[in-house]
Amino acid sequence: MSVTLGLDFGTNSVRALLVRCSDGTELGTSVANYPSGKEGVLLDGKDVHLARQRPSDHLLSMEQCITGALKEASEKHADFSPADVVGIGVDATGSSPLPVDSSNVALGMKPEFTDNLSAQCWLWKDHTSHAEAAAITETARKHRPQYVAKCGNTYSSEWFWSKIWRCLKDDPAVFSAAHSWVEFADWIPSQLAGINDPGAIQRGVCMAGHKALYADDWGGLPDKEFLTMLDPKLADLRDRLYDKAHDASTVAGELSPEWAGKTGLGAGIPIAIGEMDVHYGAIGCGVSEGTLVKVIGTSTCDCGVVSADKEVADIPGICGIVKGAILPGFYGIEAGQSACGDLFKWWVEGVCEGSPDLHAKLTAEVENLLPGESGLLALDWNNGNRTVLVDQRLTGLLLGQTLHTSQAEIYRSLIEATAFGARMIIERVEAYGVPIQRIVCAGGIAEKNGMLMQIYADVTGREMLVSGSSQACALGAAVGASVIAGIHPDFKTAQEAMTTVKDIVYQPDLENHKIYNQLFELYQQVHDAFGGVNQSADLGAVMKDLLNLKERQTQNS
Amino acid sequence: MSVTLGLDFGTNSVRALLVRCSDGTELGTSVANYPSGKEGVLLDGKDVHLARQRPSDHLLSMEQCITGALKEASEKHADFSPADVVGIGVDATGSSPLPVDSSNVALGMKPEFTDNLSAQCWLWKDHTSHAEAAAITETARKHRPQYVAKCGNTYSSEWFWSKIWRCLKDDPAVFSAAHSWVEFADWIPSQLAGINDPGAIQRGVCMAGHKALYADDWGGLPDKEFLTMLDPKLADLRDRLYDKAHDASTVAGELSPEWAGKTGLGAGIPIAIGEMDVHYGAIGCGVSEGTLVKVIGTSTCDCGVVSADKEVADIPGICGIVKGAILPGFYGIEAGQSACGDLFKWWVEGVCEGSPDLHAKLTAEVENLLPGESGLLALDWNNGNRTVLVDQRLTGLLLGQTLHTSQAEIYRSLIEATAFGARMIIERVEAYGVPIQRIVCAGGIAEKNGMLMQIYADVTGREMLVSGSSQACALGAAVGASVIAGIHPDFKTAQEAMTTVKDIVYQPDLENHKIYNQLFELYQQVHDAFGGVNQSADLGAVMKDLLNLKERQTQNS
Repeated sequence: MSVTLGLDFGTNSVRALLVRCSDGTELGTSVANYPSGKEGVLLDGKDVHLARQRPSDHLLSMEQCITGALKEASEKHADFSPADVVGIGVDATGSSPLPVDSSNVALGMKPEFTDNLSAQCWLWKDHTSHAEAAAITETARKHRPQYVAKCGNTYSSEWFWSKIWRCLKDDPAVFSAAHSWVEFADWIPSQLAGINDPGAIQRGVCMAGHKALYADDWGGLPDKEFLTMLDPKLADLRDRLYDKAHDASTVAGELSPEWAGKTGLGAGIPIAIGEMDVHYGAIGCGVSEGTLVKVIGTSTCDCGVVSADKEVADIPGICGIVKGAILPGFYGIEAGQSACGDLFKWWVEGVCEGSPDLHAKLTAEVENLLPGESGLLALDWNNGNRTVLVDQRLTGLLLGQTLHTSQAEIYRSLIEATAFGARMIIERVEAYGVPIQRIVCAGGIAEKNGMLMQIYADVTGREMLVSGSSQACALGAAVGASVIAGIHPDFKTAQEAMTTVKDIVYQPDLENHKIYNQLFELYQQVHDAFGGVNQSADLGAVMKDLLNLKERQTQNS
Repeated sequence: MSVTLGLDFGTNSVRALLVRCSDGTELGTSVANYPSGKEGVLLDGKDVHLARQRPSDHLLSMEQCITGALKEASEKHADFSPADVVGIGVDATGSSPLPVDSSNVALGMKPEFTDNLSAQCWLWKDHTSHAEAAAITETARKHRPQYVAKCGNTYSSEWFWSKIWRCLKDDPAVFSAAHSWVEFADWIPSQLAGINDPGAIQRGVCMAGHKALYADDWGGLPDKEFLTMLDPKLADLRDRLYDKAHDASTVAGELSPEWAGKTGLGAGIPIAIGEMDVHYGAIGCGVSEGTLVKVIGTSTCDCGVVSADKEVADIPGICGIVKGAILPGFYGIEAGQSACGDLFKWWVEGVCEGSPDLHAKLTAEVENLLPGESGLLALDWNNGNRTVLVDQRLTGLLLGQTLHTSQAEIYRSLIEATAFGARMIIERVEAYGVPIQRIVCAGGIAEKNGMLMQIYADVTGREMLVSGSSQACALGAAVGASVIAGIHPDFKTAQEAMTTVKDIVYQPDLENHKIYNQLFELYQQVHDAFGGVNQSADLGAVMKDLLNLKERQTQNS
């Protein structure tokens, strides 16, 4: 029996998942919460934008969950032994860079920096560097427009260079002490492999892609002239970063005797290159050409791939088409909606001030409503619009309310709004020559919220499948490990063997789809008007069309 | 001592108010609820649009509250005696017509029709005749455009002819039995005066105005040719209605011995012509040239007057400029917002599912917010837009919400939306040559909701005064009675003696007003786009402008 280990580093905890390579059976799993801060996140009472993590937490929790998963697998499966584990894959949140010294020791783990927030891992959702992001955006637009052309012309405060530059300004002592900076998703494999030279760390192109402005087209990382315009010290740092980033077919290293000893795994087994959680998640959901994977959580990430042999046009509003970012040999296409579960939670807990139980009550009230029956139409922009407008400075909108509109109807309209947003992405991708024949959804909402899944099917007019695993990210990492371990010859074969979908399939209701087509036209009108796409919008009929539809559907119900 | 009696017939009850003519002191008052139906309104489980009232309820409750008010005045004021009452004024909801026989007996009070809903008084908010209203609108637009030109080109299902035509179609037996139809506000004076011939009833121009399509310009009621296009039987009915309608300087009759006996009032005292509640309300608030009266309740009614000696242009979107409708010798200008208190109630009780106490809690949370601090912008159209768009087929809109927006912030944004709607009306009226130097507000909300009143002052940049009486409508009717009784020579003198404003004055904060000017510009953009006024709207900056303002104001707070 060959087994691989997937490690999924989330925002609050890390999960280990042991998967049998022949059929994807999940033999054992374990989750370990990061011990420090608030649910693993270090905060600063003086700055709500700050979010850091202790690298020591990552290592400690990883050791706990690996041993926990091995223990569960051994207990449940008599024929399993830790020696069956032939490879490791790692995914993590990102962009979450951390500073390391010349021996690849995280500065945050060194005694002199233990209590220094700047020396820790800068978590993806740390937004302290918004001024630096704005300055990078401005400089790139002026001098290197190609750098941001594929990211909606905006560099984010969540990304690599913004954060490092912020550290340089905010805590120059930490910046000076840092020999290099490493993405958390790359650093974990380097630790497992015992790599003590930052120059020897294998970096993943998935993280390097648009987040570190890396592209083969312009010779890797941004050139020194550009970095000097930001700060000459960033140009100096470039020499201590990396020249080449790799896709998931590359081995990041072999398990060190030290970590073999700590965990009980065999020394020398290969470790795959690290990828972003949703990218390995897409692999775990069976992403392939023609299949779109939607990871539906607090926000939504959509992943697709197109063969690298083909020409892929830039797709306006799709941020970051990077070769090898998801599957080796394919362009990775990534899109997303900035709020999904967060939006429903906002309504239930933030506005209605209800407990989480209220979701079920509201669902029961409106799950049998016909499309259009509430008369409502919403935009899902409470957290901005990532795709297709690539504009964080947008907000929510709700219209169609009368004096009889209920909280449950508004709840449903928010779900419909996310469905319309999902359809915008699908239609945009297809309009630029990337056909989508199959949609696989993953994440807690996809598994549990049947009303949402049916609305998504009805709005898009497409079948909605659900990932067979509840741990798609960790499973995808295990799939990657099975390939670099040589158990499967390629990702396609590995995915066919190890991933599946659930039996339940949400089929579109064609009558509902027809009505949703009308509503989607209205959604697009409002979307384009407030999104700045249409500067001469005629919205005078929107409310009347909604009222007419409401009256017709109320009679039909 | 000279005292007049004002009778205010509301939707659920009637109030009697005894007022000393020399100084407006309110000597006694009493309210009687109508005994039938649901809070006085007869409903039909099969048709939510139906709302009727028993004429017998009106008479019974009137008797109760007159005797109640006389008792209270006698008990509280030793020098008062019922013989001091020198005149009666009546106001009522409208358009609320009822069918009568040839002796002016309400059909609904005759044994054969007691249980027949069609034979009762068709309450203002009865919307069963929407099809008839649409047909009248269509016919008028085609053949008599002048009839609807001053009503936004739309005849309402709430008005006289729609309801009568509906009765003709729906219950021809009742229509045939009806010798005439009378507005409730005209019928009450006729009953007090013992008039037993419908042809002798003095009709008020206030109700006849646009509601019955009456105008001196075209010889009174709509011509027979037009009515024949609707139904020849309506043309026949025209002969049994009236030729001339009168303003409030006309005496409707003298108190009959029968009603003198029932109430203890003196037989023969004059009764003023009936007017709509808010029109006498405007008089009770001291309406005069340059003064706008806002009656702020579930909805809002705005009333102003312009000397009949002047030329008054049509004001687009202002529905019904009728000579004598409010004050004799003046054009009455009436505008309104279709939802005000109803909108806040919808939010608190309908959406947040809170008790009425929640209003105070939400107010406490947001009364110190700066303008723009919530980032929200709303349209107050949950019940359509009466002025300036004259379009019921519009709905609410809320935008600017983030994942942190609270229910209290939305509550405040709805109040601000009604303030912007109020400013639209003021600016429209002024733009057409009717200057407004003074605003007097009345109604429960104006008296109790200091946050709303301050927001209105800040949004409009104008002082907001509050009516001195909580019973402005009944007071206005008493003012009218004092003139026809000859106690005061004219309405101006009577108003100066009998009406006042409270000491509290809401002064605009000039800093807040500046910010609200920016928000009002955004409101107008969204208003015009969804209202169909601007067919090529550029809304791409609205959300960004709101976010910028939110950030600036959050720093300032």
